[in-house]
Amino acid sequence: MIVTKNYHSESSAILKKLLIELPTLTGGTLFKLGSIGIDVEGKDGLGGLIEEWFGTWAKNNGFAIYNPKVEEGTSQAFPDYFIGSAKDGYLEIKTFDADASPNFDIANFESYCESLSNNPYRLFSDYLIFSYKMRGTVLSVHQIWLKKIWEITCASAAYPLKTQNKRGVIYNIRPASFHGASSRFPIFNSPIKFVDALYKTQDTYNHNVVDKALFEKTLYAKNIDLNNL
Amino acid sequence: MIVTKNYHSESSAILKKLLIELPTLTGGTLFKLGSIGIDVEGKDGLGGLIEEWFGTWAKNNGFAIYNPKVEEGTSQAFPDYFIGSAKDGYLEIKTFDADASPNFDIANFESYCESLSNNPYRLFSDYLIFSYKMRGTVLSVHQIWLKKIWEITCASAAYPLKTQNKRGVIYNIRPASFHGASSRFPIFNSPIKFVDALYKTQDTYNHNVVDKALFEKTLYAKNIDLNNL
Repeated sequence: MIVTKNYHSESSAILKKLLIELPTLTGGTLFKLGSIGIDVEGKDGLGGLIEEWFGTWAKNNGFAIYNPKVEEGTSQAFPDYFIGSAKDGYLEIKTFDADASPNFDIANFESYCESLSNNPYRLFSDYLIFSYKMRGTVLSVHQIWLKKIWEITCASAAYPLKTQNKRGVIYNIRPASFHGASSRFPIFNSPIKFVDALYKTQDTYNHNVVDKALFEKTLYAKNIDLNNL
Repeated sequence: MIVTKNYHSESSAILKKLLIELPTLTGGTLFKLGSIGIDVEGKDGLGGLIEEWFGTWAKNNGFAIYNPKVEEGTSQAFPDYFIGSAKDGYLEIKTFDADASPNFDIANFESYCESLSNNPYRLFSDYLIFSYKMRGTVLSVHQIWLKKIWEITCASAAYPLKTQNKRGVIYNIRPASFHGASSRFPIFNSPIKFVDALYKTQDTYNHNVVDKALFEKTLYAKNIDLNNL
């Protein structure tokens, strides 16, 4: 897997093509059951639909992407896609309503802490992010970005890493308003700053230092130096 | 709001009509964006689609249901629908893949504990549950049930109430295999047994006795006697 602060070349090519098509990316969802078909207004399932559409779009356009859920039948949560002909990159698809702030789940907080400690390459995943607008039943893609996790995350008042919290429980890692005006909490913009905030949050939250220690050990074993990317 | 172990008459009428139509409830999802339309295979958004479809179906069939999100523009999570011409019932829509065990979120665990302590009528909500099958891109409704929460919940090895737990964190209240073979943990089948298990779980988990005390106080103030339904 690639170890670099740069986007994978396949992701960059995908973004370039998508941005050319952006003005045409309008559509919607038709759902039919029995005698009743509806033009869908709800946004609940849009993330999954755009992700599935993207898979078809990318194949039709000849990009080297590989969906482990479809092609191996596994139900793994990560990654959405392997990319590149060598399958040496991870690509995650995220979506949000352009009329609101980005509120997608970057990942389950605890799962991510553990997963990164076993597989530090996950840190270098590319995130392809679609914002959309719904006007009645008409969907249009508003903007598309390619980002690294440290480019869409920041601190919060509660923890060194912005997370979704309910009644004292941390659920998911949540994005900064990476596309908008500058906030009180700046974007990390550095892999080390993100990782520090991640494990500091876990330590503050449940005094778990095992994942952090394992992460550092795994980094060392794989010869990855975050200071030298 | 109604206080009874029985289903609301409107829910019962809805179920009856749906069961007549059951053999015809086949369809699917078409998602289009730009020049690419896909017949959707993924199941991620199906819950939301079936819920939206149900709203149209019920209106078309003259049932008295009222969606607070659509008609008041609120974003409240509960209930999915008020039912009856007096809007004196709550109706929740749940779905699951008939090829697996029921795995829908009945509710966020902590939110439900708190919500019930403020509004004990929520205990008497009706749950309209659809199981479905996906064969490629073809969706069919497999079975439909009308249930109360104490008819779809049970204990688990971890807690007095079966919940979704990840790394020691309780996320959601999860259903028993209410439709299948008998399990090691029987269905509660009683509102009191469910409530006891709910607050015992909260007490075991985070020593929160405030919600339970408030629940009992609110029940008393509203003259609701769970022993006498």
